Amino acid sequence: MFKSVITAAGLLAIAVPAFADPLPSWNDTAAKARIIAFVEDVTDPGSADYVTPAERIATFDNDGTLWAEQPLYFQLIFAIDVIAAMAADDPSILTSDTLRAAAARDYKTVIAGGKPAIIEVMKLSHSGMPVGTFQARVADWLASATHPETGLRYDRMTYQPMVELLRYLRDEGFKTYIVSGGGIHFMRVFAEDAYGIPPEQVIGTYTETDYAVIDGIPTITKAPAIGFVDDKDGKPVNIERIIGRRPIIAGGNSDGDFAMLEWSTAGDGPRLGLIVHHTDGSREYAYDRDSHIGRLVDGLDRGPELGWLIVDMAQDWSRIYTGK
Amino acid sequence: MFKSVITAAGLLAIAVPAFADPLPSWNDTAAKARIIAFVEDVTDPGSADYVTPAERIATFDNDGTLWAEQPLYFQLIFAIDVIAAMAADDPSILTSDTLRAAAARDYKTVIAGGKPAIIEVMKLSHSGMPVGTFQARVADWLASATHPETGLRYDRMTYQPMVELLRYLRDEGFKTYIVSGGGIHFMRVFAEDAYGIPPEQVIGTYTETDYAVIDGIPTITKAPAIGFVDDKDGKPVNIERIIGRRPIIAGGNSDGDFAMLEWSTAGDGPRLGLIVHHTDGSREYAYDRDSHIGRLVDGLDRGPELGWLIVDMAQDWSRIYTGK
Repeated sequence: MFKSVITAAGLLAIAVPAFADPLPSWNDTAAKARIIAFVEDVTDPGSADYVTPAERIATFDNDGTLWAEQPLYFQLIFAIDVIAAMAADDPSILTSDTLRAAAARDYKTVIAGGKPAIIEVMKLSHSGMPVGTFQARVADWLASATHPETGLRYDRMTYQPMVELLRYLRDEGFKTYIVSGGGIHFMRVFAEDAYGIPPEQVIGTYTETDYAVIDGIPTITKAPAIGFVDDKDGKPVNIERIIGRRPIIAGGNSDGDFAMLEWSTAGDGPRLGLIVHHTDGSREYAYDRDSHIGRLVDGLDRGPELGWLIVDMAQDWSRIYTGK
Repeated sequence: MFKSVITAAGLLAIAVPAFADPLPSWNDTAAKARIIAFVEDVTDPGSADYVTPAERIATFDNDGTLWAEQPLYFQLIFAIDVIAAMAADDPSILTSDTLRAAAARDYKTVIAGGKPAIIEVMKLSHSGMPVGTFQARVADWLASATHPETGLRYDRMTYQPMVELLRYLRDEGFKTYIVSGGGIHFMRVFAEDAYGIPPEQVIGTYTETDYAVIDGIPTITKAPAIGFVDDKDGKPVNIERIIGRRPIIAGGNSDGDFAMLEWSTAGDGPRLGLIVHHTDGSREYAYDRDSHIGRLVDGLDRGPELGWLIVDMAQDWSRIYTGK
């Protein structure tokens, strides 16, 4: 056993320089040291905490954890852009104040309408078309739209330290998943390029879909009804349903991730819960308890006693965005 | 490119004897030749039909496709056994004729009650407990119960030719999935040992589940409500939702699999649809158009024109069960 491990390490050395830093965009703080110590512990066949590769499941929220989410969820910006484009073609679709606000890109009014307004915007922009048509729209949007404050393409606003963490985990035999309140059909368009996460490892919210043969072509169409909201308790429920294993690493940034971290870290053996705390108002955004998006109260109040690692973006990360 | 292929083939030769038959329990008929020709074609980098490993998705129904399903679904036999055991402890649970029939192992009466009867039996036996408790029950049952006709353990009534096909596909870079009307929590107990299919590649019907912290322990509990029925149109819907890619191989045995095969084989490029036709009344069971379980009409009538391979169990398989 020991000999074969040596041999495997020897082979790896051909591809990866010895002692290469797997997390170069993390400062040399306690957070980085703890992550690396955890990974080395669970992947060391000689450790009492050794975890077989099959059980090395790591799940991460997306919005605010793997990429930014301010001034509002990027998927909602996409939805509003879609409605603006639809309204330019046919203004009669604007049948409510919410939709008129969306077409005018008046984010504040849309958000002020709360969940019903967001659902109205999402339904109109995210249904009534085959999945493939929807995803082509997302791809077109990603290729052309830029963030109102950074000027970056949205898919370049991934957090480089987290992209490195995902890659490091995969290099160490982990299977990395997204488990997000964002939509599966939206995220799958960029998750593979942005994070190295394939479609079958993207778990999230979804609209209902219908299967039918339309004009002789078997087609799956997005329906104007939400099938599942992958947030709060929905996250452990969906992980259990789809993966069927309990993650040994779970990362998030808001109270929508609390149940996922709680359930993941309550399992037997070594577990790592990780909270990305948005503390960097100059390079990114500083928000937590009072934010309208990514609200974080329980994670700050109870995370430390549950042993979770609270990552301080300002202190722990030497770089923020992949694209900058 | 050509050179590296040669080298890879050379390395493989160390582990696998040259010209080893990947499907030894298949007779040398056209069915076997077609499967092997398909796999060789899509995995040959020099072929116009080459498919990258990431897109090599193969989905298979379970009941009647990977293991037997007569005289009734094994999961239903399990459910009936659970109710009989529950009633021995507490006869007051038998509040209907259906449940009394179940406790008496009167399969015919249960089946005669149709879907409502089956749902009643499933709900009582499959809910009100944590997923882990349920799965421990399934494991205990599998370890002790035997089939009324073959005398085999149920998890030894897998079809050896299909077990070989799954292994062959994985050896050729495919990701193999179960997509079944059976329950995810039931199938995951044996899928890895029986088929080499890990929990996260088992897609199926599920009860709703609830997440809650019970006596300080985060727990996922099976609720007495069906969350999703993974049958007919539900199969392509669930594949799209969970895998997010269209399979290039899909296999089934009943009209419940028709939509899955239809959708899979309608994709661009090479596709293989496969129907296991139960033609062997002496070694297994012979049934199709008139069966109360595994009814197959559309697959026989339309499968051939859609280019699907109809596997004739009597002719194409030299062996049936893994356990015999």
